[in-house]
Amino acid sequence: MKKTYLLCLCSVAVIWSEISLSEPVTNIAPAPNGIEFPVGYKKWQVISLSHRTDKDSVRVILGNPIAIEAARSGKTNPWPDGAILAKTAWNQRIDENWPAAVVPGEFWQVEFMIKDSKKYAATKDWGFARWRGKELKPWGEDASFEQGCVACHTPVANRDYVFTSPVFFDTEKK
Amino acid sequence: MKKTYLLCLCSVAVIWSEISLSEPVTNIAPAPNGIEFPVGYKKWQVISLSHRTDKDSVRVILGNPIAIEAARSGKTNPWPDGAILAKTAWNQRIDENWPAAVVPGEFWQVEFMIKDSKKYAATKDWGFARWRGKELKPWGEDASFEQGCVACHTPVANRDYVFTSPVFFDTEKK
Repeated sequence: MKKTYLLCLCSVAVIWSEISLSEPVTNIAPAPNGIEFPVGYKKWQVISLSHRTDKDSVRVILGNPIAIEAARSGKTNPWPDGAILAKTAWNQRIDENWPAAVVPGEFWQVEFMIKDSKKYAATKDWGFARWRGKELKPWGEDASFEQGCVACHTPVANRDYVFTSPVFFDTEKK
Repeated sequence: MKKTYLLCLCSVAVIWSEISLSEPVTNIAPAPNGIEFPVGYKKWQVISLSHRTDKDSVRVILGNPIAIEAARSGKTNPWPDGAILAKTAWNQRIDENWPAAVVPGEFWQVEFMIKDSKKYAATKDWGFARWRGKELKPWGEDASFEQGCVACHTPVANRDYVFTSPVFFDTEKK
């Protein structure tokens, strides 16, 4: 019985530490289509990364737990409902100690794709949102900004509208 | 009392899911200096990323929880004992759907720096290790490979021998 109580105590401690590690509530304005800023995304695991030479920026693509599970098991066409992809971009910078390395400079923007085949059926099953600059200003004048997102992603309709290919780490099969 | 039991049950479920999500034990050989492969590193959070144009590769740098806490609070000179940095590299690839984007191709290698000012005092307080290729072959003929690591990192001795600058996400102060 003592062991049970000890386990419970440890479990509560684990949950408490998870709670206390979560982000404070912020007052970032929602996107014009009503999507709220996914606070805490920077703690998600890596899906991939890119260097966009046409935008002089480097990006890391993170995934929430549903997206990560899909990515690691190769079940991404289609991605499952509940998956969220976060693409964070920084202006590129030359590393002062290694001039052949292009690394992140200033934070530029963070973009999200949220998969929900019912809620976002009108925009190819994805909810799109972007916040730009350190002030995290929601992007778009009104909800019609989504049409630009859909248009840009339509060339990869056969990849469930996602450009990113998840990376494979070491021992994983590709 | 019922609530307590319910909480305990939930807590046990959380712990169980954490355990079941952990990596299976692998039989990857240790580095020639005795460092064991840090299984599970790919679940760590992002420290930074880079495009090494001199090596035609892209990299993501992840940190264990101690490293992440240090990075987010700017306490990285020196990094605290217990911090581990993992640099995973892939051969670069041009994205077939966005030719201006350089993205990860094949997995190339993963390198680690493990901070322990007592254990690794002889190598500037860091334990170095690298595993290369899908077969994760430990790098180095014998333990003397560390000297090459130290020599390469010595130009950044004033940054605690670490090239990487942690990225800052959105609302964080730089």
